[in-house]
Amino acid sequence: MAVLLCSTSESVDDWAEALRSLSGIDLRVWPDAGDLTEIDYAIVAHPPLGVLPSLPNLKAVQSLWAGIEHITCDKDLDPTVPILRMIDPGLTGGMTEYVTMHAQRYHMLAHEFDLQQQQGNWQPRTPPLASERKVGVLGLGVLGSDAAKRMADLGFQVHGWSRRPKTLDGVTCHHGDDGLFDLLEQVEILICLLPRTPETENLIDSTTLNAMPEGACIINAGRGELIVDEDLIAALDSGHIAGATLDVFREEPLPADHPYWTHPRVTVTPHIASVTRISTALPVVEQNLKRLMSGEKAEDLPGLVDRKAGY
Amino acid sequence: MAVLLCSTSESVDDWAEALRSLSGIDLRVWPDAGDLTEIDYAIVAHPPLGVLPSLPNLKAVQSLWAGIEHITCDKDLDPTVPILRMIDPGLTGGMTEYVTMHAQRYHMLAHEFDLQQQQGNWQPRTPPLASERKVGVLGLGVLGSDAAKRMADLGFQVHGWSRRPKTLDGVTCHHGDDGLFDLLEQVEILICLLPRTPETENLIDSTTLNAMPEGACIINAGRGELIVDEDLIAALDSGHIAGATLDVFREEPLPADHPYWTHPRVTVTPHIASVTRISTALPVVEQNLKRLMSGEKAEDLPGLVDRKAGY
Repeated sequence: MAVLLCSTSESVDDWAEALRSLSGIDLRVWPDAGDLTEIDYAIVAHPPLGVLPSLPNLKAVQSLWAGIEHITCDKDLDPTVPILRMIDPGLTGGMTEYVTMHAQRYHMLAHEFDLQQQQGNWQPRTPPLASERKVGVLGLGVLGSDAAKRMADLGFQVHGWSRRPKTLDGVTCHHGDDGLFDLLEQVEILICLLPRTPETENLIDSTTLNAMPEGACIINAGRGELIVDEDLIAALDSGHIAGATLDVFREEPLPADHPYWTHPRVTVTPHIASVTRISTALPVVEQNLKRLMSGEKAEDLPGLVDRKAGY
Repeated sequence: MAVLLCSTSESVDDWAEALRSLSGIDLRVWPDAGDLTEIDYAIVAHPPLGVLPSLPNLKAVQSLWAGIEHITCDKDLDPTVPILRMIDPGLTGGMTEYVTMHAQRYHMLAHEFDLQQQQGNWQPRTPPLASERKVGVLGLGVLGSDAAKRMADLGFQVHGWSRRPKTLDGVTCHHGDDGLFDLLEQVEILICLLPRTPETENLIDSTTLNAMPEGACIINAGRGELIVDEDLIAALDSGHIAGATLDVFREEPLPADHPYWTHPRVTVTPHIASVTRISTALPVVEQNLKRLMSGEKAEDLPGLVDRKAGY
């Protein structure tokens, strides 16, 4: 009963060291996998195509990240092998800190005051109070729900949207295609925390952006593919969208000549909103491994991915 | 029993209209004060020198602002006349929103990522979690206490400082000169919400700035006079202080040639952190006036200024 750590991420050595500190685990670190038939579980971050399908007795995959399309994109992976996404209090907390700070930044007009400062322009404006501001959250999984609840706790009027119906204390929940536009038409600040699936790709395009109120702002910490970049830039240029804070991009690092870098109404951060911190994620991995190794089904563990839905 | 509204602020007409909507108040609006001997109460925002001392029967002054040095600077005003500062849930809530957002901005390195964006530089860094970050709040009055509590609620390690000893749930409280340095030596983000008094003027100078850890950031939404501007700029230029967000200045509007406007590590906002909103402040004024007119002592009302301490 061996466990393979297969990661192409920078943090692989730190993870290998951390996992070795756990007792009772026969750890292999890719590419030194040893006898592939001995491997029951894989712990992965962006594994190369083909590695997971090469493990004949693979019983479950633990992702070190919240997003899992870097695993499911391997078409040779047996669709019945359960995948567990990372649900880590540090990752969730960090993401909530990121999106709620940037939402508050727009809420209190900091983006407008930044532009005024560049022009040496002293022009006081009174921001509304949080209780007077409608904010939307697209995606109500672990990350989106936590962010929506925090915004509600801060006093905002929060609307949430998910593919399937959900209920969440203090949040007006919408779902489905109609629900999406019900939300977009009224929220001035939009937080995108959707996973990447065929349904969510290109969701933020000229149609959805134009449905939002004039001067709305958008924060994307989900996946770059959610946004049609040309449409967002056009909406920013026209002034219909007043600001965009983007942490994720179709190509990362963001190419040097990409217009986002220099757009006066775009804030670029280098994919740092959601970081798996070993300190908080290691206990999650340990707990899941122990439960799996003791015979519990992956279906009963937190973070099981719905392979059909793609998230 | 008449009430004089005396304001040189832009909002005077809106306040006059709002106060006229209250029943049972003989309202006069400066300079049309009528018979000065009839005036018992004054509601003021930056009253011209000499106006308040000209009211022989003045029983109490209600400030429309949280700061009151624009009233106490009138040396001819009888020192026994009670002054009530504005304690308004909208003003407090707006201030807390402002300082906590800007503190979180520094906490999650947004100032560093902004500079990286200007250079087209993709350099991911993992911010610590709120629970790993020490934040200080100078001033634990109504505004400072509310901000400190919010930061604690957000999970930060919060230290507070006030002239006199205080206790506050979830906040490590310091006081006096020694306490100030105990706090400064450990906090990476400093929120200044002190009033302007002879003791607080020039408090943030090279000595106090140098006491803070390398790379610390500062947010001033108290008064411009708290900071020795030359010392702050020197500390920013040396890199010892990594960022400053300033909402208040010695001269407002901030002069066009002031180095703060263009400093890459300074965020300027046009004195908008703490705004008295009529919607939330009018009920406060009404309540205080009614209690005063029914014979209650100003000493028993919220917001009484300690004339000796100057705040």
